[in-house]
Amino acid sequence: MAAPVLGHLDPDFLGIMDETTELLRLVFETGNRLTIPMSCTGSGGMETALINFLEPGDTAVVCVNGVFGERMEDIAGRCGSRVKRVEAPWGEAIDPDDVRRAVEGERVKLVAIVHAETSTGVLQPLTEIAQVAHAAEALLVVDAVTSLGGVPVRVDGEGIDVCYSGTQKCLSCPPGLAPITVSPRAEEVLAARKTSVSSWYFDLTMIRRYWGSERFYHHTAPVSMIYALREALRLVAEEGLEERYRRHRVNAVALGEGLQSMGLRLFVRPELRLPSLVSVVVPPGVDDVCLRRDLLTDYGIEIGGGLGELRGKIVRIGVMGYSSQRKNVMLLLTALEDCLNRQGFRVPVGESVSAALRVYERSEGAGSEPADGR
Amino acid sequence: MAAPVLGHLDPDFLGIMDETTELLRLVFETGNRLTIPMSCTGSGGMETALINFLEPGDTAVVCVNGVFGERMEDIAGRCGSRVKRVEAPWGEAIDPDDVRRAVEGERVKLVAIVHAETSTGVLQPLTEIAQVAHAAEALLVVDAVTSLGGVPVRVDGEGIDVCYSGTQKCLSCPPGLAPITVSPRAEEVLAARKTSVSSWYFDLTMIRRYWGSERFYHHTAPVSMIYALREALRLVAEEGLEERYRRHRVNAVALGEGLQSMGLRLFVRPELRLPSLVSVVVPPGVDDVCLRRDLLTDYGIEIGGGLGELRGKIVRIGVMGYSSQRKNVMLLLTALEDCLNRQGFRVPVGESVSAALRVYERSEGAGSEPADGR
Repeated sequence: MAAPVLGHLDPDFLGIMDETTELLRLVFETGNRLTIPMSCTGSGGMETALINFLEPGDTAVVCVNGVFGERMEDIAGRCGSRVKRVEAPWGEAIDPDDVRRAVEGERVKLVAIVHAETSTGVLQPLTEIAQVAHAAEALLVVDAVTSLGGVPVRVDGEGIDVCYSGTQKCLSCPPGLAPITVSPRAEEVLAARKTSVSSWYFDLTMIRRYWGSERFYHHTAPVSMIYALREALRLVAEEGLEERYRRHRVNAVALGEGLQSMGLRLFVRPELRLPSLVSVVVPPGVDDVCLRRDLLTDYGIEIGGGLGELRGKIVRIGVMGYSSQRKNVMLLLTALEDCLNRQGFRVPVGESVSAALRVYERSEGAGSEPADGR
Repeated sequence: MAAPVLGHLDPDFLGIMDETTELLRLVFETGNRLTIPMSCTGSGGMETALINFLEPGDTAVVCVNGVFGERMEDIAGRCGSRVKRVEAPWGEAIDPDDVRRAVEGERVKLVAIVHAETSTGVLQPLTEIAQVAHAAEALLVVDAVTSLGGVPVRVDGEGIDVCYSGTQKCLSCPPGLAPITVSPRAEEVLAARKTSVSSWYFDLTMIRRYWGSERFYHHTAPVSMIYALREALRLVAEEGLEERYRRHRVNAVALGEGLQSMGLRLFVRPELRLPSLVSVVVPPGVDDVCLRRDLLTDYGIEIGGGLGELRGKIVRIGVMGYSSQRKNVMLLLTALEDCLNRQGFRVPVGESVSAALRVYERSEGAGSEPADGR
């Protein structure tokens, strides 16, 4: 990001744009032509993914099992579409049968769902829901903000039509861009629109002309942010996707085992646990605000509080991107023991660390560190 | 931008946010509480400034004398409002009498106008148009993308209700944020909305709760970009606003005199010339694409081509922010002489440089360099 700022139509910058889109196709595991970073943070990616494919009067099925599903519903409603909400309890996954019932007997334009619910720590299985959406001739729109680069997001393999993410989660880049990819089928829907996209800034019919061969000016690209994303993606490519997914799994399991050995309860059942974010139930008698403040002040570690209806009930520990590594897991467990003990939640010192170590031993010492982890 | 990324709710980052808003108030010359950087480039600022104050059925008067006025019209139309267009020829300013006629006899929600038309190089006088807008009880929305920090943008002094800018022009920061300021009167209009803002990402009714004392999470702020903006604003404050305006004026006049002494014609008449961007008519027989390519390849200097209807007819030379300094003016004149001569447009070598030097002498040697110009 400290490199000199090039003009947004400078030939050298156009080369950097092309490299960035090629690397994005790699992490999205897609051949989609329209694969670009939007000039906004992840939530702007969400808006882009919905408003470009919805017109007034369209029906959208939106799956809600956390804060980000609710946000999708809010955005879809603002562009004049009718929203059908499919719900699951927070901490659970969406049931494909519920989606099937929602799309039955009517013309649904798209089904929107969150792959990695950052507010709960649930990893949503997508295969069956993709089949349901496609059987109903609806597009599948997937939020991969907290999965892309740390958990497989197989856009072509799963048949995802529109998928977006943020840069500051598993890609380990500063926040500021929203990678998005659009399938040929979704591009057809875009081309067949009868009305203008409700937002000029997020209008893909114009933006794709800047990122495509025309290089038609739309808005000035955030040049330094794109440098940062390109570099972050090069690190992902250097490590290798499958190795990176494995690293995220190992460190999340080690963290989870350590936490449970302290007597803490994980919020999500094992088969739905997200490898990039571990959510923990705040035990009775513990104040999560004090806990988080102590961790930040005394250890320089920031963990998230509960959002929405989970405020005060869970804490959320990110183990994503560069930060998904053994030394961070071990320090967090040690620090958490200390901070919980201060609040009178007695934890036997050292047991959590031993539990985590057993996981690392089982994984045969292989790669709990990122490619350039020092 | 290379500083470690803090969390978007980290107490240290909240301090940086407060400093940034305080410095933004300084450059906007305003006391407006709601003065923040939006997480997008300048065009996203334009969208924010229009859609938050327009509801379906409202009437907006949009002044068009260049590409960015047209963009305002496009955006205002997308949120369902009726747009009345007030025009002036490209290269001319909007006539306040035309605005007066447009607002007469009907309820107009806002008048939108570009202060510094980047596509033509015109600086629009605002005082009279502000009076006309306010007499009609309409808000005045001003695009200050290419003026803020280089040309006075006296938000409170002129009675501007909503004013936005970009970071990469006279503020000399990388592109990626859009500073915006909203008057108390415009905040009232926002609070009195009957419908949701058409965009979730740009919805000021929510974003102001993150930038205000509540610190309510909306979207993850682009942390590194905000570091960059804060630093750029500190440099503006260090130099001093009036000194900075003076520097922009001196360098633009020197450049303009030099260009004219080569036999080139400036596109805009003297009293409307923007001090941050000098537009020059491409002389007969000269190919602007070759000219710009030669300047970039052989001198590392990027100048802009004509946009829209001015494509191929003018070139646009930015002299803004850090780049507004004597050495850049002198090098550009020298380089342009060389590149024009190659195309057979014979220029007497050295005359333009002498003409520019005479301007610097008249300005008595004072400050043609930025505060930290080395």
